[in-house]
Amino acid sequence: MKIISFEGIEGVGKSTQIKLLNEYLGSKGLKTEILREPGSTVTGEMIRDILLNSKESLSSESELLLMFAARAQLIHEKVINSKNDIILFDRFYDASIAYQGAGRGLSIDFIENLIAFSKCPSPLITFLLDISVKDGFARKAEDIKDRIELSGDKFFEKVREGYISLSKQYPERIKLINANNSVEKIHQDILKEIEIVI
Amino acid sequence: MKIISFEGIEGVGKSTQIKLLNEYLGSKGLKTEILREPGSTVTGEMIRDILLNSKESLSSESELLLMFAARAQLIHEKVINSKNDIILFDRFYDASIAYQGAGRGLSIDFIENLIAFSKCPSPLITFLLDISVKDGFARKAEDIKDRIELSGDKFFEKVREGYISLSKQYPERIKLINANNSVEKIHQDILKEIEIVI
Repeated sequence: MKIISFEGIEGVGKSTQIKLLNEYLGSKGLKTEILREPGSTVTGEMIRDILLNSKESLSSESELLLMFAARAQLIHEKVINSKNDIILFDRFYDASIAYQGAGRGLSIDFIENLIAFSKCPSPLITFLLDISVKDGFARKAEDIKDRIELSGDKFFEKVREGYISLSKQYPERIKLINANNSVEKIHQDILKEIEIVI
Repeated sequence: MKIISFEGIEGVGKSTQIKLLNEYLGSKGLKTEILREPGSTVTGEMIRDILLNSKESLSSESELLLMFAARAQLIHEKVINSKNDIILFDRFYDASIAYQGAGRGLSIDFIENLIAFSKCPSPLITFLLDISVKDGFARKAEDIKDRIELSGDKFFEKVREGYISLSKQYPERIKLINANNSVEKIHQDILKEIEIVI
């Protein structure tokens, strides 16, 4: 079993690219599964409810630990003993470094400890779809925009910088893809990398 | 604000002693609050539901992270800015070292990192009510005993040893109290220690 993860801020078009890559892998006879976080397990969905609907203001520390509680359960239940050839992750642990580390300012060393403790396997390859925060926002529906804008442009600028910095730290694994291009061009850029590793 | 925590395996009589100490502190004009974990916040109660009712088998890692997510939120909301003189904890972070560390075999170093990350203040004093596992079980109601016994005697022996080891590591803070004595004698033993520090 191999993991391919997709990363990026809101509005970069991850879902569309995951769908296209999933179809491509299926056409090659590979057994695949798409996982989203937090979620994809009973516990994970309950945690997702807390994160999205908690009426009280959740502390950054509690938010990070809930994300990893969901992730640890997902790894335990659906990843380690997976019978699929490939699991496609719509965001995986790099997102915690970008959002909670770079974005919210929590310790990246501690997040790396959490990644190890949760037994997260390293993805074979990670696609970082990159676009400016402004262009990303412009692509989202109005209702989603409202929620995102609550956190402010500056937060998402930090998240984007965190992602770019990760791609420089792990250039072999994390491929930065220009997400300003057409859907088809992005898909082809992804396939070029996939053909090297699969 | 100062913290007094009570620790021990099932059946040692923590609730009774917390109630008695709380009445004593109230009679001295001190403003107190009793907190239980996980719980005591909206998020914490939702996490408690996951821990108690999750139908799937929760991994030890996920269980530990959920405990600390609840704890981090409790510290954030109710402890750091508390206006009470004393908070009485019915188990606090030592329990994670005893149950998840000594009991389930998770890394105690990592649990100590979690304690620091969650900004847990150190209790002024901790009462470890100690009793043999067999005597503890004998005191519990039948329905509770069934649930406890599912985890097995050996697990609780390890937890007890973990607690005793902690009391040797932090002898100034953690006071080991013989919980085989009468309720009144235990209460007096606790008051002797309390009069020194309060």
